[in-house]
Amino acid sequence: MTQFINDRDALVTEAVSGLLRGSAGRLARLDGFPHIKVVVRTDWDRSRVALVSGGGSGHEPAHAGFVGRGMLTAAVCGDVFASPSVDAVLAGILAVTGKAGCLLIVKNYTGDRLNFGLAAERARAFGLKVSMVIVDDDVALPDLPQPRGVAGTLFVHKIAGALAEAGADLDQVTAAAQRVIAGAISIGMSLDTCTVPGSPKEARIARGKAELGLGIHGEAGVEQVDFAGARQAMAMVVDRLRPAMGEGAHVALINNLGGATQLEMQVLTEELALSDIGSQISHIVGPAGMMTSLDMQGFSVSLLPLTDADLEALSAPVDLAAWPGLQPFGEPVVLPVPDGLIPIQPTPSSHPQRRELLRRCCDILIAQEAALNALDAKSGDGDTGSTLATAARALTAALDRLPMADLTQLYRAMGGELSQTMGGSSGVLLAIFFAAAGDASAGGRTWIEALQEGLARVQQVGGARPGDRTMIDALAPALAALPQGVKAAAAAARQGADFTATIPRARAGRSSYVGSVNLLGHNDPGAEAVARLFENL
Amino acid sequence: MTQFINDRDALVTEAVSGLLRGSAGRLARLDGFPHIKVVVRTDWDRSRVALVSGGGSGHEPAHAGFVGRGMLTAAVCGDVFASPSVDAVLAGILAVTGKAGCLLIVKNYTGDRLNFGLAAERARAFGLKVSMVIVDDDVALPDLPQPRGVAGTLFVHKIAGALAEAGADLDQVTAAAQRVIAGAISIGMSLDTCTVPGSPKEARIARGKAELGLGIHGEAGVEQVDFAGARQAMAMVVDRLRPAMGEGAHVALINNLGGATQLEMQVLTEELALSDIGSQISHIVGPAGMMTSLDMQGFSVSLLPLTDADLEALSAPVDLAAWPGLQPFGEPVVLPVPDGLIPIQPTPSSHPQRRELLRRCCDILIAQEAALNALDAKSGDGDTGSTLATAARALTAALDRLPMADLTQLYRAMGGELSQTMGGSSGVLLAIFFAAAGDASAGGRTWIEALQEGLARVQQVGGARPGDRTMIDALAPALAALPQGVKAAAAAARQGADFTATIPRARAGRSSYVGSVNLLGHNDPGAEAVARLFENL
Repeated sequence: MTQFINDRDALVTEAVSGLLRGSAGRLARLDGFPHIKVVVRTDWDRSRVALVSGGGSGHEPAHAGFVGRGMLTAAVCGDVFASPSVDAVLAGILAVTGKAGCLLIVKNYTGDRLNFGLAAERARAFGLKVSMVIVDDDVALPDLPQPRGVAGTLFVHKIAGALAEAGADLDQVTAAAQRVIAGAISIGMSLDTCTVPGSPKEARIARGKAELGLGIHGEAGVEQVDFAGARQAMAMVVDRLRPAMGEGAHVALINNLGGATQLEMQVLTEELALSDIGSQISHIVGPAGMMTSLDMQGFSVSLLPLTDADLEALSAPVDLAAWPGLQPFGEPVVLPVPDGLIPIQPTPSSHPQRRELLRRCCDILIAQEAALNALDAKSGDGDTGSTLATAARALTAALDRLPMADLTQLYRAMGGELSQTMGGSSGVLLAIFFAAAGDASAGGRTWIEALQEGLARVQQVGGARPGDRTMIDALAPALAALPQGVKAAAAAARQGADFTATIPRARAGRSSYVGSVNLLGHNDPGAEAVARLFENL
Repeated sequence: MTQFINDRDALVTEAVSGLLRGSAGRLARLDGFPHIKVVVRTDWDRSRVALVSGGGSGHEPAHAGFVGRGMLTAAVCGDVFASPSVDAVLAGILAVTGKAGCLLIVKNYTGDRLNFGLAAERARAFGLKVSMVIVDDDVALPDLPQPRGVAGTLFVHKIAGALAEAGADLDQVTAAAQRVIAGAISIGMSLDTCTVPGSPKEARIARGKAELGLGIHGEAGVEQVDFAGARQAMAMVVDRLRPAMGEGAHVALINNLGGATQLEMQVLTEELALSDIGSQISHIVGPAGMMTSLDMQGFSVSLLPLTDADLEALSAPVDLAAWPGLQPFGEPVVLPVPDGLIPIQPTPSSHPQRRELLRRCCDILIAQEAALNALDAKSGDGDTGSTLATAARALTAALDRLPMADLTQLYRAMGGELSQTMGGSSGVLLAIFFAAAGDASAGGRTWIEALQEGLARVQQVGGARPGDRTMIDALAPALAALPQGVKAAAAAARQGADFTATIPRARAGRSSYVGSVNLLGHNDPGAEAVARLFENL
């Protein structure tokens, strides 16, 4: 089994049950499993024209997903890609049809036409008013006497549904459906076939090829074409649609056949806008999977000439997650990038004592480069010393342009220097450390408190906590002890660094990925760096 | 290329443009392509707390699809599975943050934490109030110090979004987000890997296996397990969730990782209901693709303990097609099948003349069986004679129980007999023919007019028209001439049947699929049957 199903025979009944469970009681099924799989509205009083559609399953959310106020009244679900029986369709009609009558919306497949057609006859023998329309929107073969019904069916569901909900009579709803069918055109394209439950997947479309002019049952497209990307794919689709298209504005329904990613569907939407008919598309429905062919990696475009009446019907709100709504199709709105992305360069200023302290810290770290690298080589990739030395060299080089006299600006400027010169996570973490310290300093904290705030922010952002075997295990106690002097800080840092040697596995940072290597007995190189920094000050 | 894209590097910018085109101007992007890919609300006045999320692309509709009233204010989109830069995040923050401040909702991946974290620092340096929460809902490895952020993020977007929209301040929104994060748990399962644009698809999961405990970037699950169907798959997922789950009611978010069919997702929803924790699920969101991993054929279940406040926030309406809404999760409603599926058996009655006519028709068709089969063998599968003879034998056997005296009931009963005894399309079409004739008869038409109505209905349902090389080419002129007598009808039928030999290709019915075979010179066997029937009467 290659799908999340249990049993091919129970697939559709289980799926219908799953759908109903999340319907808040707005949907029910008829008690005819497994033969009769009919989903109906529970808020239906038969006072208006009922809309019944359906056909084989495998096209979800069609059709049961479109049962609800303002769209279908009932959906009759066959097994996967198999028409429902006459009895099932008749049960659906009888369950929802009152004096106002019922419109059957049927896609142009022989089995559906016959089973829905005979059910209609049997329902009429009960004295019910039943009309039936056949959707045949596929333009894959322009001269085919019996074009298939595909995703253009959604136009019919929505427009007829809005009219019926508004109280139109059966003749009006039927006439509107027929008018929509006369105007709707569709074509599909796919890069891969679909996986029919219980059957091996057919490997029909070679890499570099696509099929154009598909139905929705895994049958082959009318031709295989060379595939060269989304732009050319949409151009081929548009070439097939254009001869069948009139002048003026159209609604486009962009349908995911099931297995295309949402990214691909958005790219295709963009390509439709840029295509030769883009200027004629005034509104879109989708992109979304509405009339799928199981997991087929393909899409279809359906077009309907725009009229005011259809626009109103297509826009009428429905409470159905499966209906993505009608939207105007327009140019993307582009707003200017806000000011402030390039940090303002601080004005250099002088503070000899701070300058000297900073220089000494840098010198110490540069001097420890090789030793720290050697230590890191035991647990990581041996570059902790170099990473810190790089940072130190960058700050050393920047000493003359730093705003030494203003601690807030100094911290922020150090953060900016480090984020611009260091790659990877370390640079960003040090930048966050100093930026947060600057923030805290601006908020009135002492210089030590500001560094402690910086550390807290690094912990929050980076996710490491004391005891995780990181630099923090030395830096946190050192900063806590720093008000008692550098000596106390150095002692605390040393104790913290040595403690890391008793932590067998890293819980954050790069060495957390060192799964089975036992790190016992080696100090974490970042923590060791902090200890050596304070010890050498 | 195996996807509907143009160029891997332009993929996300094109997709963002496609998204915007259908947003009715409610969304805009910042003018920073390709580096800065930020989608923002255009109806935003900065008076309330801004919500900014994002991360690598490939998780559509997350995150740009959730930008809108009541959810996110901005989404910062990286390239596929790559964190956006600090500058991009900062641009997003600056574009939407006013005095009320901004909450960054970040999934727990190092790149996202660091880039969003540093952007937050830089934004704070502008005097903006920015807080940041880290979503870590994945329970794949219960003792992992840094669990990933996956689909549970949607709970945060929706709940924080509702609060922000309602005017809560930054502390309140942040606290709510942190509470939701503390309560949300998720786990994913997949049958196949995803296709990363521009990279070959990794064949990592063997047939019969599934991966449990997945991230959303195509990384391997924490274990490979044997796969034995949807029920057992959901049981494994539930086993991982249950230890992390408290007592009481929960909301479940059922997420399609991208490539599972909607049928599969509905089956999985049913299985969740039937699972050990089913009784604890009071509400669901989905099933729908909300936090996808490109086209991965998998799903995830996220749980959140239910509180009244969260229920209200999750239920608050939003105008976003990507958000499927919160629904109560309950038992399917089952309604009785309507009466009338088993047709009432008509009371037999006597009309010797009609009985004799019907018997003669049947005898004629039975006598022509072999000849008509031979004719059909030239264009079809050689069974037209047998099909009609079967129908005739069925009617002959039913002669004694037919309601001969009531023409309306007789037609309907003949339809019923034929639909029950004949298989395939022919039986249904004859049943429709006689049922519609019965209807017309009930409506006051003569017996010939009723048959004409029957034929009209067969044409509508079956889709064949005169000239399509079917039985209709003889039956339509015969019924038209029948008021002038059987002789006239026979002549018309013969002319029509012979005309079919001049139609080179069938345009309806089974022989329409005989593509290249030239049928010129052979009468259509169905039309020939009609001619012979009338000629022999």
